[in-house]
Amino acid sequence: MNSYKTHLQVLSQHCDATGIVHFPRYSEMAHEVIERWFDEALDWSFARMQGGEDLGAPIARCEAEFPAASRLGDHLVWRLQVSAIGRTSMDVMLAATCGGERRVDMMLTLVLSDIGVIQPRGWPEEIRARAADYLTVHQDA
Amino acid sequence: MNSYKTHLQVLSQHCDATGIVHFPRYSEMAHEVIERWFDEALDWSFARMQGGEDLGAPIARCEAEFPAASRLGDHLVWRLQVSAIGRTSMDVMLAATCGGERRVDMMLTLVLSDIGVIQPRGWPEEIRARAADYLTVHQDA
Amino acid sequence: MNSYKTHLQVLSQHCDATGIVHFPRYSEMAHEVIERWFDEALDWSFARMQGGEDLGAPIARCEAEFPAASRLGDHLVWRLQVSAIGRTSMDVMLAATCGGERRVDMMLTLVLSDIGVIQPRGWPEEIRARAADYLTVHQDA
Amino acid sequence: MNSYKTHLQVLSQHCDATGIVHFPRYSEMAHEVIERWFDEALDWSFARMQGGEDLGAPIARCEAEFPAASRLGDHLVWRLQVSAIGRTSMDVMLAATCGGERRVDMMLTLVLSDIGVIQPRGWPEEIRARAADYLTVHQDA
Repeated sequence: MNSYKTHLQVLSQHCDATGIVHFPRYSEMAHEVIERWFDEALDWSFARMQGGEDLGAPIARCEAEFPAASRLGDHLVWRLQVSAIGRTSMDVMLAATCGGERRVDMMLTLVLSDIGVIQPRGWPEEIRARAADYLTVHQDA
Repeated sequence: MNSYKTHLQVLSQHCDATGIVHFPRYSEMAHEVIERWFDEALDWSFARMQGGEDLGAPIARCEAEFPAASRLGDHLVWRLQVSAIGRTSMDVMLAATCGGERRVDMMLTLVLSDIGVIQPRGWPEEIRARAADYLTVHQDA
Repeated sequence: MNSYKTHLQVLSQHCDATGIVHFPRYSEMAHEVIERWFDEALDWSFARMQGGEDLGAPIARCEAEFPAASRLGDHLVWRLQVSAIGRTSMDVMLAATCGGERRVDMMLTLVLSDIGVIQPRGWPEEIRARAADYLTVHQDA
Repeated sequence: MNSYKTHLQVLSQHCDATGIVHFPRYSEMAHEVIERWFDEALDWSFARMQGGEDLGAPIARCEAEFPAASRLGDHLVWRLQVSAIGRTSMDVMLAATCGGERRVDMMLTLVLSDIGVIQPRGWPEEIRARAADYLTVHQDA
């Protein structure tokens, strides 16, 4: 069981006028983490998915908790794991911490889809296999 | 039982390269709807909350479903109701439709907080009273 | 000589941690003003331009001054005029004020282009004619 | 004469529905490059500037050209140099290329300012000295 790990620093563009991260920016960061994971761990960048194969992976569902606020300059450690892989969907769990403190816990459901008509499509076998390395618990095929 | 209603059109800034709304932009729109509601219905703009009283209302929790994709130019009708008002928190339900089709269902938990220390603070009585007009069901005081 | 006028309020999403509008958000607002103008004044929404005719209008050049800062809740009055219309390009001047105070002066050059190859394309005659109503000074055809 | 160099990849959040980078996102990227440069090269992060010393560096002026479009997945190489340092202002030149092709040329004027009142303040001597290493041409003191 692996977890994918990457870093993102809180920038001016992420903060609101009260000095903390505006919550939609956490979703932007989470999507960036997913894009990095697809590229680096699944070897299937969003550019290749969209450009070569006319597929997208829109978000169908999101659950998030923000237990503590983040501020300009904070170094966020993001960890990603997969909690379930369906035929066309994938549940991705993301957690961000700063100095060990929990800042974000998020669950996103991606659905592989044809661009244009937004019809669900099955995950390619090699993508499913690579993503399975990041499953939180063993899932039967 | 009221529901607050407002409109937002899908702009270039909201879309991704597959031509549909990027999901963090829905959170931006939802926050804009909340800001309009505070200003117009609760008569307590975020500018006044933050500027005059050194308070903020960060999001502690988010649940969202995106049953269908939205595209450039779509006119989204947003509706807001309140599902619960706690001493310092408020659960706000937001729904966006386009031509009657459901696009977004979202639940956001706001927590009134001191700016700086991010300590929860009780809602002012008149804000609580005005927000109660938007409760989905009767809630005992 | 007309000028197109519209309003935008400064939201949480526009501000940085120092409490003023983060300068890239002014560019977002300016693009929103242009999208409204295309839709309302030129009767050629970006959705129609892109969807029906496979055209886009990317920005080739930007000049901007920000003489004073804007803050959460500020009502910005945006005015748009056209300073030049070329065969494929258009220079659009945008100015935002708040209570009469200048906040933004911006000049953007749009180039009508094929989507995909990004080749310049001539403005349709009726669009050129409608845009000419917003020229700052008389321009010979 | 140094130039500061850093990388940014084009993400879903940067693109519009025509598949190219939406121009306000270049400004976001440029600001991120400036924040990295302040942190890494000037040893004065925006977090320290704002938090410890109640100073900000808002943008007073921007000039930008976008000679070619960027797309999802493009690796942009950003280079930063300083063209002028005034008592309270600094002109920063930024250029982004992809595979050697020019994508963005930008000039931004920052003005060091007190947060709140937005009054110009003189650059600290050590910041001025470090920034001078990135001057495009020799500037007399």
